[in-house]
Amino acid sequence: MYRSHTCGELNSANIGEEVRLSGWVQKVRNKGFMIWLDLRDRYGLTQLIFDEERSEKALMEKAEKIGREFVIQVTGKVIERVSKNPNIPTGDIEVLVTQFDILNTSLTPPFTIEDETDGGEDLRMKYRYLDIRRNPVKNKLMFRHKVGMQVRNYLSNAGFIEVETPYLIKSTPEGARDFVVPSRMNEGQFYALPQSPQTFKQLLMVGGMDKYFQIVKCFRDEDLRADRQPEFTQIDCEMAFVEQEDILNIFEGLTRHLIKEINGVEIGDFPRMTYAEAMKKYGNDKPDIRFGMEFGELNEVAQNKGFKVFDQQELVVGIAVPAAAGYTRKELDKLIEWVKRPQIGANGLVWAKYNEDGSFKSSVDKFYSQEDLKAWAEETGAKPGDLILVMAGETRKTRTQLSALRMHLATELGLRKADDFAPLWVVDFPLLEWDEETERYHAMHHPFTSPKKEDIPLLESKPGEVRANAYDLVLNGNEIGGGSIRIHDKKTQSKMFDYLGFTEEEAKAQFGFLMDAFQYGAPPHGGIAFGFDRLVAILGGQETIRDFIAFPKNNAGRDVMIDAPAKLDKEQLDELHLQLKL
Amino acid sequence: MYRSHTCGELNSANIGEEVRLSGWVQKVRNKGFMIWLDLRDRYGLTQLIFDEERSEKALMEKAEKIGREFVIQVTGKVIERVSKNPNIPTGDIEVLVTQFDILNTSLTPPFTIEDETDGGEDLRMKYRYLDIRRNPVKNKLMFRHKVGMQVRNYLSNAGFIEVETPYLIKSTPEGARDFVVPSRMNEGQFYALPQSPQTFKQLLMVGGMDKYFQIVKCFRDEDLRADRQPEFTQIDCEMAFVEQEDILNIFEGLTRHLIKEINGVEIGDFPRMTYAEAMKKYGNDKPDIRFGMEFGELNEVAQNKGFKVFDQQELVVGIAVPAAAGYTRKELDKLIEWVKRPQIGANGLVWAKYNEDGSFKSSVDKFYSQEDLKAWAEETGAKPGDLILVMAGETRKTRTQLSALRMHLATELGLRKADDFAPLWVVDFPLLEWDEETERYHAMHHPFTSPKKEDIPLLESKPGEVRANAYDLVLNGNEIGGGSIRIHDKKTQSKMFDYLGFTEEEAKAQFGFLMDAFQYGAPPHGGIAFGFDRLVAILGGQETIRDFIAFPKNNAGRDVMIDAPAKLDKEQLDELHLQLKL
Repeated sequence: MYRSHTCGELNSANIGEEVRLSGWVQKVRNKGFMIWLDLRDRYGLTQLIFDEERSEKALMEKAEKIGREFVIQVTGKVIERVSKNPNIPTGDIEVLVTQFDILNTSLTPPFTIEDETDGGEDLRMKYRYLDIRRNPVKNKLMFRHKVGMQVRNYLSNAGFIEVETPYLIKSTPEGARDFVVPSRMNEGQFYALPQSPQTFKQLLMVGGMDKYFQIVKCFRDEDLRADRQPEFTQIDCEMAFVEQEDILNIFEGLTRHLIKEINGVEIGDFPRMTYAEAMKKYGNDKPDIRFGMEFGELNEVAQNKGFKVFDQQELVVGIAVPAAAGYTRKELDKLIEWVKRPQIGANGLVWAKYNEDGSFKSSVDKFYSQEDLKAWAEETGAKPGDLILVMAGETRKTRTQLSALRMHLATELGLRKADDFAPLWVVDFPLLEWDEETERYHAMHHPFTSPKKEDIPLLESKPGEVRANAYDLVLNGNEIGGGSIRIHDKKTQSKMFDYLGFTEEEAKAQFGFLMDAFQYGAPPHGGIAFGFDRLVAILGGQETIRDFIAFPKNNAGRDVMIDAPAKLDKEQLDELHLQLKL
Repeated sequence: MYRSHTCGELNSANIGEEVRLSGWVQKVRNKGFMIWLDLRDRYGLTQLIFDEERSEKALMEKAEKIGREFVIQVTGKVIERVSKNPNIPTGDIEVLVTQFDILNTSLTPPFTIEDETDGGEDLRMKYRYLDIRRNPVKNKLMFRHKVGMQVRNYLSNAGFIEVETPYLIKSTPEGARDFVVPSRMNEGQFYALPQSPQTFKQLLMVGGMDKYFQIVKCFRDEDLRADRQPEFTQIDCEMAFVEQEDILNIFEGLTRHLIKEINGVEIGDFPRMTYAEAMKKYGNDKPDIRFGMEFGELNEVAQNKGFKVFDQQELVVGIAVPAAAGYTRKELDKLIEWVKRPQIGANGLVWAKYNEDGSFKSSVDKFYSQEDLKAWAEETGAKPGDLILVMAGETRKTRTQLSALRMHLATELGLRKADDFAPLWVVDFPLLEWDEETERYHAMHHPFTSPKKEDIPLLESKPGEVRANAYDLVLNGNEIGGGSIRIHDKKTQSKMFDYLGFTEEEAKAQFGFLMDAFQYGAPPHGGIAFGFDRLVAILGGQETIRDFIAFPKNNAGRDVMIDAPAKLDKEQLDELHLQLKL
């Protein structure tokens, strides 16, 4: 037996007991006549002590050879500490060692195994197994497990069945690129890894499974942006005989449950907002509503006052930055610089200070009277002491730019509080999205999303205005889930493929099995999928997902620890009927 | 709202209520003046009624057009049935329909959606979404979910953390073939899909995760035998600071819990048997111990009696078939035929009837006296009325043949009862296994398995006799789990790679990261993995796994429903820097 207790559980109630512990040596303090070691395992730290008076000389000598991260097993007696440490649960006691074994030695680790490590990102990834020993990473992985268990138990109790869908499926060119898997047994043919179990979960609904969920890995061969992973985890859900309202209620319940159980925060009904409203008020379909700074559209009050820069634009729009009227010229210039960076791409930024005394001072005083600026304040909701920031240009682009500025300022001003949770449903997404490159409409969600019944007549005339039965769940400015009520009849689905520019042959080749299934009594159905990595990170109060993934890949899609991907032997390629074409 | 109740929940307590149901039409009975429909959903069946007297004519006419598997939504009143059906929970009531909508029509399904269907395996697989509507399949998938939840909750409560390990990893030529995934971003390089998360779980132990589990998909590109799938699910577990005894206890606990919670059967301590004993007594390292028929070795009592067929052989071994002394000549000939089939490959079979009167009658009476045969009975444990069957030959081969015969007879005699659970630990597996083809030793489990300390001196002299800290959990003659205590120091692991014929370079290229990790304080650790598909099937009282998998592949590794694998566009291959070599 390697241990009678873990390193996290001994306290003053155990004083006098003989115990056995195993773990890693976190720290060594050698005063010559006394040696302290901090022994660490997943559960905590326990202080070990050897001293001249009470420990055998041979034991002291052996203890001196122990280094950081050695794995040892000790037997000893729990004694009261002279100087207690109130910061850790075991801080009242220490273990006077009477016997120990070195179970394994350790080289000096390439970075310190401390909460604040000296290791950079690259080094930590290469030695991820050492990084995981650090509390911040270990705790995030344990946190992820806890969230996963809560999700599973909640959905299972609500009658959902977790069904494992296959990983070796069929490539569908629509959407992002698939990862593919050559088949050795079926010469010249390939499986694809699923981008999501979308079609399978719909088939499960056709199959009468009624309520399905799965926490499942999905794969997308995209050029990776920061904080995207080629493999990621989804909470995938689908229900039959439901309308949008049913889905929103069930998954609002799940999310509320998680925030309560995991974060101890009780949340009431989630607000709902149409896509159109979200774009108008926040310039963004996943607004962070933990703070205000809603957009005020200023066309009526800021155009035709002689300021040509505004007059020619489609949209003039501003926000009020709370208590920022005191910004210096330098601070304002920095903001103007910020929006002009290529990542944002704005032409400029107009500012107006709403002074505490009720007066206004702006960068465009030449064109606007105090009364004009007062009207700006009204539209943006500015109060004395606030700073109004205004941008103008093409509607879509300007909204995006102002949204970026709004988020930037909120972060700077500390308004995006990690322990504050502001969920929001965004509904009534457009069904179709115009793609400049291919010059045709694409499905905004995916080709299985149903249009709103009342908008179907618009499909021919104004396809861009057709709204879908599609919804996103937004939490603190992040889309954590999205879904839709699906099309469930072959006729509508065929028509949709048609609108999306699929030929009949293409639709049949790629989705024939789904279309076939729809002929045999497909029920009305819909669902949602949550990005599990992101959900866990946000519940954990973080913006980046990487440390919530045990073995993440870097931005080139590489696992630097195991050095994958890697070359294959020619023999292996031959068996797969493949050759490289470099 | 599509329904106020499911089709499984209404009973006499609901009589008089107005309800709304949605589901599939299971059956139509049209008596002209009266129409009954059985409406089905995941939860059950409810009888709907339309009649001349109480239903509107238009409604009756509409109802007449409904076919099997149509999806309908009905509103109606719960009434008492005239002729009750005590076999279903809703059998006391029916719903008098006042309004209904056809939500979707259905073509006539290619096979009947009944417990006993007329659809063959191929048709059922092609239309799996219809097959899943059938109770036997649907219930198996729900059963699988239940087992999964029990496993997760048990392990989580025992302090295990579920950690998701990556699916895009590195190919390791050892063992079965990997499925590989070409990397678009890393030209000429490939990921591999994991055959198991073995190295990652060991790295998690090095990382201090202490207790890990995961229910996870694994992939093996093997030539498929019946009832093997290229992708399969494993309950993968690993623990640090444990000895074999700790692992056996924990996972015996899990298995006992499952059998109790799922099957309602209480099981005491699991028996343990060494590999050597299992081979000697059952000719098999996964014996079914639900019944006896243990092997009796007969060399001492059957050799040197003038019967040359036995004299020349390495092993003469028999079993007693209970109450089978009455087998006719024809039945005995059939058994002899059976063992001579190429799948078994025996040369023959000697029989001896132990008659109720205490006398013997055998196929080799010329060579053996009554007293000789009495000795056979003693060795095989035969009682009057039993039939002794004896085989002879090379030890390993003969044991395998007799084991096959033992299982065949047990099945024939109904001794393998599905609701009887006989778990067994098989321990002390050999570390190495001689491979005739490559003429070298292979790791019997995998190259990370530790040898028993006391056997290490034999590694040089008699490698085949070295026992490993390796164990299998056997349930009803199936290996449901297997694992080992791992090597945790670089020196021993290097030596093991050496014994297994890896060059230093090969070992470094394939397992360098694990060897590196072992230098930084790897703890003693070990684990186990359960075949989840098989475990679920056995707990469900079945021998085949296919119907416990939602969308299984056929023996050619194809998904016939979605028709995968399939060809790729040339464009897609180009992007992956690949070309076919057919």
